[in-house]
Amino acid sequence: MLAAARAAFAERGYDGASIRAIATAAGVDPALVHHYFGTKDALFLAAVEAPADPDEFLPRVLAAPPEALGAAVVGMVLHVWDGPARPGILALVRSAVNHEWSARLLREFVLAKIIRRVIGSLDMPVAEREARGALVASQLVGLVMTRYVLRLEPLASARPDDVVAAIAPTVQRYLTGDVALPGRPD
Amino acid sequence: MLAAARAAFAERGYDGASIRAIATAAGVDPALVHHYFGTKDALFLAAVEAPADPDEFLPRVLAAPPEALGAAVVGMVLHVWDGPARPGILALVRSAVNHEWSARLLREFVLAKIIRRVIGSLDMPVAEREARGALVASQLVGLVMTRYVLRLEPLASARPDDVVAAIAPTVQRYLTGDVALPGRPD
Repeated sequence: MLAAARAAFAERGYDGASIRAIATAAGVDPALVHHYFGTKDALFLAAVEAPADPDEFLPRVLAAPPEALGAAVVGMVLHVWDGPARPGILALVRSAVNHEWSARLLREFVLAKIIRRVIGSLDMPVAEREARGALVASQLVGLVMTRYVLRLEPLASARPDDVVAAIAPTVQRYLTGDVALPGRPD
Repeated sequence: MLAAARAAFAERGYDGASIRAIATAAGVDPALVHHYFGTKDALFLAAVEAPADPDEFLPRVLAAPPEALGAAVVGMVLHVWDGPARPGILALVRSAVNHEWSARLLREFVLAKIIRRVIGSLDMPVAEREARGALVASQLVGLVMTRYVLRLEPLASARPDDVVAAIAPTVQRYLTGDVALPGRPD
């Protein structure tokens, strides 16, 4: 079931994959998938082997007022990476860099479970949401890579609050500020 | 010689590794290293297996006035990644994510050969240089990861000019703007 779920999420994305299709591919009844995993959400987290559940830390971020969302998001990223989930997330990132299907899963995870929900709390058209979400991801993924993977100083050993102070204005601008938004070419 | 050079650069960094010590570790005469590679710079590029030589594209970036440096740097990164060197750079990034010594080599390469030279063109104290350089790296590495590795839309297929317009203000702020600079804790 998990293998079928991984293949479906990587191929069709979080929205496109249905529990029914995953059950069919695994040769089981959809009711069995529901019995084991409950929701599609829980099945997705299991398939990605997510080392941390966004439901645990996202509500606090989403409670921030729009003008403080940048700092809340950066603070959350550091909090999760500086916690016990780090080895698990690092394994996920390594896998994503090495395997195309794994990159797709991580992209879906970051997009569907984190960025989209943060951006979803702001009022704007879908195309703008996508563009702002990708820009936010570009800064957050880069922060994680330089601080935790490449360990570039002084970012690697700087205090979380100092990192938030430096990076949050960028994320805030991407979320709600004045940005020339990139789009897909026509 | 290359194995000894890789070990030395990974262990002691670009500045700390000397041709003399590398030659000793490889059991050869320093003159032989000079004969084969010329400068320490060329030896480093060979050791990293650099798919592109910064000397080819950096001069154009450094010719930009300080207030246009952000756009010049982002444009250069996209130009190099959208060119024939992409598979080589991707291999370097994959290796860096998987091996600690490889991460150190990539960090040294990005730091010593690119960021430091870009920042070196600006007049500021060393600690500020380091901090601004790491922040610039956090945005550029993230841009590369989201656009080329995770292929997050619309960043993945946006026109280079549109990407520059969105990202350059961030890099410009990190280079010369008003930033709460992170430092190593005392």
